[in-house]
Amino acid sequence: MVGEMVENKQVIFKGYIEGVPKETDMELKVGNMIKLEAPKGSGAFLVKNLYLSCDPYMRGRMRDFQGSYVPPFNPGSVIEGFGVSEVLDSDNPNLRPGDLVSGLTGWEEYSLIYKTEQLRKIEPDDIPFSYYVGLLGMPGFTAYAGFYEVCAPKKGDYVFVSAASGAVGQLVGQLAKLHGCYVVGSAGTSEKVDILKNKLGFDEAFNYKEEQDLDAALKRYFPEGIDIYFDNVGGAMLDAALLNMRIHGRIAVCGMVSQHSISSPEGQHNLLALISRRIRMQGFLQSDYLHLFPRFLENVISLYKEGKIVYIEDMHEGLESGPAAFVGLFSGKNVGKQVIRVAYH
Amino acid sequence: MVGEMVENKQVIFKGYIEGVPKETDMELKVGNMIKLEAPKGSGAFLVKNLYLSCDPYMRGRMRDFQGSYVPPFNPGSVIEGFGVSEVLDSDNPNLRPGDLVSGLTGWEEYSLIYKTEQLRKIEPDDIPFSYYVGLLGMPGFTAYAGFYEVCAPKKGDYVFVSAASGAVGQLVGQLAKLHGCYVVGSAGTSEKVDILKNKLGFDEAFNYKEEQDLDAALKRYFPEGIDIYFDNVGGAMLDAALLNMRIHGRIAVCGMVSQHSISSPEGQHNLLALISRRIRMQGFLQSDYLHLFPRFLENVISLYKEGKIVYIEDMHEGLESGPAAFVGLFSGKNVGKQVIRVAYH
Repeated sequence: MVGEMVENKQVIFKGYIEGVPKETDMELKVGNMIKLEAPKGSGAFLVKNLYLSCDPYMRGRMRDFQGSYVPPFNPGSVIEGFGVSEVLDSDNPNLRPGDLVSGLTGWEEYSLIYKTEQLRKIEPDDIPFSYYVGLLGMPGFTAYAGFYEVCAPKKGDYVFVSAASGAVGQLVGQLAKLHGCYVVGSAGTSEKVDILKNKLGFDEAFNYKEEQDLDAALKRYFPEGIDIYFDNVGGAMLDAALLNMRIHGRIAVCGMVSQHSISSPEGQHNLLALISRRIRMQGFLQSDYLHLFPRFLENVISLYKEGKIVYIEDMHEGLESGPAAFVGLFSGKNVGKQVIRVAYH
Repeated sequence: MVGEMVENKQVIFKGYIEGVPKETDMELKVGNMIKLEAPKGSGAFLVKNLYLSCDPYMRGRMRDFQGSYVPPFNPGSVIEGFGVSEVLDSDNPNLRPGDLVSGLTGWEEYSLIYKTEQLRKIEPDDIPFSYYVGLLGMPGFTAYAGFYEVCAPKKGDYVFVSAASGAVGQLVGQLAKLHGCYVVGSAGTSEKVDILKNKLGFDEAFNYKEEQDLDAALKRYFPEGIDIYFDNVGGAMLDAALLNMRIHGRIAVCGMVSQHSISSPEGQHNLLALISRRIRMQGFLQSDYLHLFPRFLENVISLYKEGKIVYIEDMHEGLESGPAAFVGLFSGKNVGKQVIRVAYH
């Protein structure tokens, strides 16, 4: 098979967008051929992509804006994203055919990878490989770094998580429970609320779409107020949370889904609470905490193996399902971490 | 004089307000009599008020809102505020007639003080006594605690201070300069800008009222971006600063003057910058840092005596000037710390 020329279906980024992504911003391209080979002297490796990750931050790469922490996609090129892949051929001394890697790859069946430092080898284990773009990948590490490093949690803290059944939120809530906190999550369907309460072990959960008054909802679930708000959404929920924070409360501002609402025309109105309640509100990116990644991996793998945490995935089948899966993130269609299975291992 | 009945002019709080305070929200009451005596067994002391402080936070006490960190004034009662006073009679073992005290007193000529723990004795020194409600009082300590404890300053940091010639801002800027930072201040008149540059040693200063575009103004003064924004105003300036923060920037949210603008109907729009730039935005109150007060007093008195810092006051004469002086804070009429001289020592 190595050395062979095969078809390589791809998902192409068509051009810069404004607002919420649409399926038509991407295009499935068929008929492209690739040689299954890592050229000698290139240091590259050639992979077969198994799982691709749909992450809200990718929307930022669809805009024509160079000033962000991650550069825009190139119109006409394959979409780049996190994935789990199998090495088919390698000119890189650290990897051999058959190895599994996770990290940045292309939305295509096969990728020739030159930026080898953007992937890490996965050690075979009895954990689903797809978890390496979720629980054990960027979203999981965002939850871990955000909760422990930004939220400064204490046992007994009242913790609120928005978008709580999502790729990040579901781990935040479970880590908070393990830390001895009282945890309430919000989500946008009754199915998700059920998952939060019955599968993920949240103390309480509510469907924000069924609440007339978010402030009243938070007062109902947090009569004593909120110590930690892990904000995945911004907007009206952030404003409501500000009114319910306890003195010396902490808000971790994470939500890339919130790009839209946090910069919404109506704006945030309740920042005055920051002063009287002495709230710390902090934006963060997991990439600032990479020195903690090995510890994260070790801790979370242990917790998973001990049955102390679970992880909900929304698995779509086939590369061609990618654009719809990605677009669905922005209307909350995904139930759990959104993954695309490109090929079976 | 002790034991005598004398007239005690007072400034009375008339009733709860909304919006910006007006002079007519307060009333000068004449003809009230007081006995210049601390009753035996009361533990109280009777003072002659020398200086009274006009502070923006007092507006919060004029609203009918119990949930704040400081309770509302009582309609019909004397306004309470920080002052510097001379003890005329004392039933308190820690104070003797002739001692000077600073802390919470009444807007009146004489006050009988039962809450003795809310004042501290001033040790005689060659520092103007009025500084004990400014440079060496709550505003100065707010600057000190906010700058060192909240802003986490480093030598070479780019520091922006709004309302920079005010009671708090002027010390923030000077401490930042002494810390080796580059410091720019904004203010609302050319006179204040001149003071910032020529008396307070700011590197640059600008009149925000003359700027069409605050974002462009900040880009002009901070081509490399802002590491620390000491926010005394909120609103549009905070939004502009958010767009100009450097990665890992810090925003200390202090501004009680900003109560109005920070909760303005238009809201804050640029919080998305918190994430991509990993900004920490923190509200604070000086009262959380009182353990540092002795060190603050020692440090700032030393710096003042060494001629390394100065302090600008706006001194109004007479208790009757109080309401206008206080109201002037909210339109920036004061040049420097607003003080009322009630009596000469």
